[in-house]
Amino acid sequence: MPKKHEALGTHILLEFHGCPPDVIRNSDRVEKLFLKAAEISKAHIVKTVFHHFNPHGVSGVVVISESHFAVHTWPEHKFVAIDLFSCSEDLKMEKAIDFLKKELAPKAVSTLRLDRGVL
Amino acid sequence: MPKKHEALGTHILLEFHGCPPDVIRNSDRVEKLFLKAAEISKAHIVKTVFHHFNPHGVSGVVVISESHFAVHTWPEHKFVAIDLFSCSEDLKMEKAIDFLKKELAPKAVSTLRLDRGVL
Repeated sequence: MPKKHEALGTHILLEFHGCPPDVIRNSDRVEKLFLKAAEISKAHIVKTVFHHFNPHGVSGVVVISESHFAVHTWPEHKFVAIDLFSCSEDLKMEKAIDFLKKELAPKAVSTLRLDRGVL
Repeated sequence: MPKKHEALGTHILLEFHGCPPDVIRNSDRVEKLFLKAAEISKAHIVKTVFHHFNPHGVSGVVVISESHFAVHTWPEHKFVAIDLFSCSEDLKMEKAIDFLKKELAPKAVSTLRLDRGVL
């Protein structure tokens, strides 16, 4: 797969629809889930920033040595936008995605995979 | 433009090729540029995380009330990947992009605009 090797990074954009509002409005819980997802992917965590909006929603980023995981939740719409950006082919992204699907329990998922930095 | 109003967020993915390596390997400088870009867009800055890799490259995220700006640089490839994610239509994204183009001086730019959270 030559394309894979020409790109500096892989960016997976996930959209989770129909998530339970109680889960995705809880900043601590969302932060723990994303830390765990980063761990499962074998990423090296550098720092996390999670922010709880009033009255709704969570925004958070886990900066990893291999790039970043980001999440934004809209509990009022049962919607979660996720970005998994990695410059390493070694990360177990599928395992992280399976974990997030299990925990955030979306009724529908859309996924877009993009190469970043095709030289 | 009904599509715009149906989406919860706008995600602009920029790829800057041919940037001066000295500029994009400097973590302090890249952080300052992204803070300034967030300011120019009229975003409300919540927190920033910037990380300098050894020996190359910078990864950083500016978490804003309206979502996030992220940047990853590869000085050895003169390449910068940028994500501007906003859930507000009020942000002056074009002004922020013009500023980043001016300061990071890419020789080629590719831009992808995606709606996030189309309900």
